[in-house]
Amino acid sequence: MPNVTKHNFGAGPCVLPQDVLKKAADAVMNWDEQGLSVLEVSHRSPAFEAVVKKTETLVRELLQVPEDYSVLFLQGGASLQFCMVPMNFLRDGATYLDGGFFGKKAIKEAELFGPVNRDITQITGDYFHCTSNNTIEGSQMKSFPDVPNLICDMSSDIFSRPINVSEFALIYAGAQKNMGPAGMTLVIARDAFLDDVKHQVPAMLDYRVYRDNGSMYNTPPVFAIYAAMLNLQWLQSTGGVPAIYKQNKAKAEMLYAEIDRNSLFTGTASVPERSLMNVTFKTHEPLLEPVFLAYAESKGLVGIKGYRTVGGFRASLYNALPLTSVIALVDAMQEFENSNIYG
Amino acid sequence: MPNVTKHNFGAGPCVLPQDVLKKAADAVMNWDEQGLSVLEVSHRSPAFEAVVKKTETLVRELLQVPEDYSVLFLQGGASLQFCMVPMNFLRDGATYLDGGFFGKKAIKEAELFGPVNRDITQITGDYFHCTSNNTIEGSQMKSFPDVPNLICDMSSDIFSRPINVSEFALIYAGAQKNMGPAGMTLVIARDAFLDDVKHQVPAMLDYRVYRDNGSMYNTPPVFAIYAAMLNLQWLQSTGGVPAIYKQNKAKAEMLYAEIDRNSLFTGTASVPERSLMNVTFKTHEPLLEPVFLAYAESKGLVGIKGYRTVGGFRASLYNALPLTSVIALVDAMQEFENSNIYG
Repeated sequence: MPNVTKHNFGAGPCVLPQDVLKKAADAVMNWDEQGLSVLEVSHRSPAFEAVVKKTETLVRELLQVPEDYSVLFLQGGASLQFCMVPMNFLRDGATYLDGGFFGKKAIKEAELFGPVNRDITQITGDYFHCTSNNTIEGSQMKSFPDVPNLICDMSSDIFSRPINVSEFALIYAGAQKNMGPAGMTLVIARDAFLDDVKHQVPAMLDYRVYRDNGSMYNTPPVFAIYAAMLNLQWLQSTGGVPAIYKQNKAKAEMLYAEIDRNSLFTGTASVPERSLMNVTFKTHEPLLEPVFLAYAESKGLVGIKGYRTVGGFRASLYNALPLTSVIALVDAMQEFENSNIYG
Repeated sequence: MPNVTKHNFGAGPCVLPQDVLKKAADAVMNWDEQGLSVLEVSHRSPAFEAVVKKTETLVRELLQVPEDYSVLFLQGGASLQFCMVPMNFLRDGATYLDGGFFGKKAIKEAELFGPVNRDITQITGDYFHCTSNNTIEGSQMKSFPDVPNLICDMSSDIFSRPINVSEFALIYAGAQKNMGPAGMTLVIARDAFLDDVKHQVPAMLDYRVYRDNGSMYNTPPVFAIYAAMLNLQWLQSTGGVPAIYKQNKAKAEMLYAEIDRNSLFTGTASVPERSLMNVTFKTHEPLLEPVFLAYAESKGLVGIKGYRTVGGFRASLYNALPLTSVIALVDAMQEFENSNIYG
């Protein structure tokens, strides 16, 4: 079988820029000509401490994080945040937006710690929790409610569009979409909100322990942080969040336009909520689904199978996915439509 | 400054085999000629599922793990285990070996969940917790007590010497010594012990959730697991744990012999407890400490500074550290002694 250029539409872990991969691979062999691999260096070395500091600075610059917010690096993904948030902040109750698959998982964990209100017309309790982008369903919040303690899971759209950090008490995100490889979690939190925790919480589940130790209470995920630094440097060099947002909009608009035009396909998310990151669609005719999937694979389009409980297709258009990959998918959809086999 | 071969005595993250680094770097660029980086592949892909399975198989083979034990991959390092263990297993109380720095940290977390007995002549409670090797102090347990529910933090000596897994109810280890790079945690647990958990625990802190989902309840630390697989393959190819144990003994014996012989140095751990992994020593004359440190660095001997709260020197002799590095250190100690500057 001949080699075909791969277009990686995976939902995460996902495509990363070639330049980032090249630098990361070099550092695995010999990091900055130090004669050691980035996998071998002490996390207490000045060289790695500079990486953590640089990564934090990049997060602050790219998202214009206000000074009274802390930027923390954890492990465990968003799923660990599902329990850390209520463990730290839920006292009397909290309101959760009962949105997509992962929002429901967050609610399930919160209910171990206290009552959860799902009625968002009556926001009550210690905080309001929402998911900015539903990776599986392909829907995205276009604005956020004006509430005092807003907590948001931004795993799948952070760094993809401008946000106003000061609207939030706490933002968290698994890294493996627009930040870097899997294995680290970003938390951005208002210091006054963290200071208000009254619970006694185990050290590794206490945000303040990460803050007080510069995210190095214990050995951090060294390589994941290093690769995230490279990726955020790449993002900054391409013009930062406003520039990537324009590209992300162009990519998504092109694909949605083809879905709406093509007689074989239909989008599955409601139009006003359509996500710029995860484009979900299906064939009108269910029998065509595996046929198109095989056709797409033959064209090097990988990772477009929809989530296993949902079916259909999902094309994830994260920051590092080039426009040429979207064009390749649109071309494949048109060729598929035009092919007389399915006429 | 001319390039000097580096000998990495770091306490973790630590030296890894060159062959492992080479394969890991290749996979960051193009994993097994798939046209994708190992950082970009879905954790649900058959290729990565095979990695998890292979890594588990290697752990089972290398440590002869009995069939009624589960092998799990988590995040958060040993420090997260310090709270997960009592959260899951402590009901009425537990006995902790109040040994080194990290054992004390484990006790502090356990006390959030129930009473801790430190009197090991009277082992009581739901389990007995110990640390097999004290990385900072340079001491190592040479045998383990015969108690029903033995839990052991083996972060710094797992895979370095034969163990009898069936003696333990649960073993945990941060990966960043003999298993792979930082960013994952290995847990080996007797299934009947896990089944006995009665607490309602958040999903990401519940060992059974990892067991029931093949360590993929959420996105795992893909690269850390992949690199661990490479490293365990290397260990297997060199003869497995019995063979590396012989090498580890030879390396440690050579260094301890020099410490005991050399008029300038003295060991800091009690002789019967001396660790094969972390060799701690100091100069009789404290003023010589920074002088030798600088001399060692000029010889490419890195990572031998003792832990910041302890001082002196610590040479970590993990599996991947070659005998030639120990010889280089011993040579430096002899040259330092012979140098008339310090005569």
